[in-house]
Amino acid sequence: MSQPPVNASITGETRLYVIVGHPVVQVKAPMAFNPLFHASGRNAILVPVDVAPQNLAAAVAGLKSIANLDGIMVTVPHKAPMCALVDEVLPSGRMIGAINAARRERDGRWVGDMFDGRGSVIGLRAAGIEPKGRKVLLVGAGGAGSAVAFAMAEAGVADLTIFDVDTAKAGRVIDGVRRAYPAVRAEAGPPVPNGHDTVVNATPLGMSPSDPFSVDPATIRPDVLVVDVIMKPDVTPLLKAAQAKGCRVVPGRHMLDGQVPAVAAFFGL
Amino acid sequence: MSQPPVNASITGETRLYVIVGHPVVQVKAPMAFNPLFHASGRNAILVPVDVAPQNLAAAVAGLKSIANLDGIMVTVPHKAPMCALVDEVLPSGRMIGAINAARRERDGRWVGDMFDGRGSVIGLRAAGIEPKGRKVLLVGAGGAGSAVAFAMAEAGVADLTIFDVDTAKAGRVIDGVRRAYPAVRAEAGPPVPNGHDTVVNATPLGMSPSDPFSVDPATIRPDVLVVDVIMKPDVTPLLKAAQAKGCRVVPGRHMLDGQVPAVAAFFGL
Repeated sequence: MSQPPVNASITGETRLYVIVGHPVVQVKAPMAFNPLFHASGRNAILVPVDVAPQNLAAAVAGLKSIANLDGIMVTVPHKAPMCALVDEVLPSGRMIGAINAARRERDGRWVGDMFDGRGSVIGLRAAGIEPKGRKVLLVGAGGAGSAVAFAMAEAGVADLTIFDVDTAKAGRVIDGVRRAYPAVRAEAGPPVPNGHDTVVNATPLGMSPSDPFSVDPATIRPDVLVVDVIMKPDVTPLLKAAQAKGCRVVPGRHMLDGQVPAVAAFFGL
Repeated sequence: MSQPPVNASITGETRLYVIVGHPVVQVKAPMAFNPLFHASGRNAILVPVDVAPQNLAAAVAGLKSIANLDGIMVTVPHKAPMCALVDEVLPSGRMIGAINAARRERDGRWVGDMFDGRGSVIGLRAAGIEPKGRKVLLVGAGGAGSAVAFAMAEAGVADLTIFDVDTAKAGRVIDGVRRAYPAVRAEAGPPVPNGHDTVVNATPLGMSPSDPFSVDPATIRPDVLVVDVIMKPDVTPLLKAAQAKGCRVVPGRHMLDGQVPAVAAFFGL
């Protein structure tokens, strides 16, 4: 039996979802969501939308005026500016100051939230790792780092030590976590494990082979879990070094895989 | 072998085309163009975009700011207002005062044109009917009628008699045809064939079973070709009555089928 032309199922009744970024050639969301739509029998499609930063407001205004468009995913560099372009930012997104998904409510309002950190927690759990009660050293308090910090706190980690070369940035995330999750011991500290059972790299260090380590592998004991948020390379030099010491490691891909079901649920799938 | 999930081929590199209408559930363009994209090996997709009239300007501004969006098709009720939303309207569109497709040029400008009438001519030719030299009675000088008038004139009909209940409207189309195609004898006349070998219904009469005929079938001789632009019903009461008299008839679908290759060429496929 011959295969149907791909996309032959798109009709006038198809509902639309987009992922907005700049560039977009690297996005993986269409490959993650379109098979979900298909499996659920939904006549819907997610397509990539490349919008330069100076055009974001106009593009989002236009997208929101499309009656059969139900959801907008957002990736680099639009996650923070997107907050100002929706009617409501849910608590996670508000704490982090960035969102990566927005949906149209029944009343027409657009509501957004951030799923990157939640994706990491779900991804860890899918790998059989429960964040609750862990003593975490988180290195990097930027976009990814703050998302991971709040999601780890929400998941009930016991200790959260945060380091960033920008100490003010680390301080703001620590203050936010303390206010939102008083049960979590959040504090600043050096990028050196000290009684921690988990190390998370949320800096960009490791994307280039010439990068220094964000955490010196010599300071990591073999019983420490080492997690990275970097997706290229699949396995960073830090993870390789940790693996060589016998550590369990989790590559960055877990964060993307983990958030697909969370965003799908947010979109009502 | 199991079939791949439909739409699994959408990636971050997919180029976008849209058809903008209100509503859009009835549009056939996705089913016409997506198999073409697939057959040509192009990573591109055409999706329906439902935009209410009051949102058209904002929606089109947003669509034009999407860097991986290469073409915009337009259907009811946006064909005339769309003229003001592109940088240039090509001659057919300018004469008709409406466009149904626009593309991004290499220099970033958006250029639009009208393919409805050209679609009718191509569709007639596909049915083995050459418009050149014909004596045509065209009833209806609105959007579809004016598109057919200019395309028929461009195709070299000999005579073009145009009737519309709004005589001023008919007069404007006649003046336009005379200016653009001096070789065509264009004139106003009653909706009664009188030496014509072709009758075209470009009014909405025939969509509802209770509609009166736009041309009284009793006045149509069996050797006259009768063409309709109405697509629902497939075969209008006028075509049925003409068929019963022995006339050759061409249902409205020819206009849609005919313009797919023309729009595809315009989009550079």
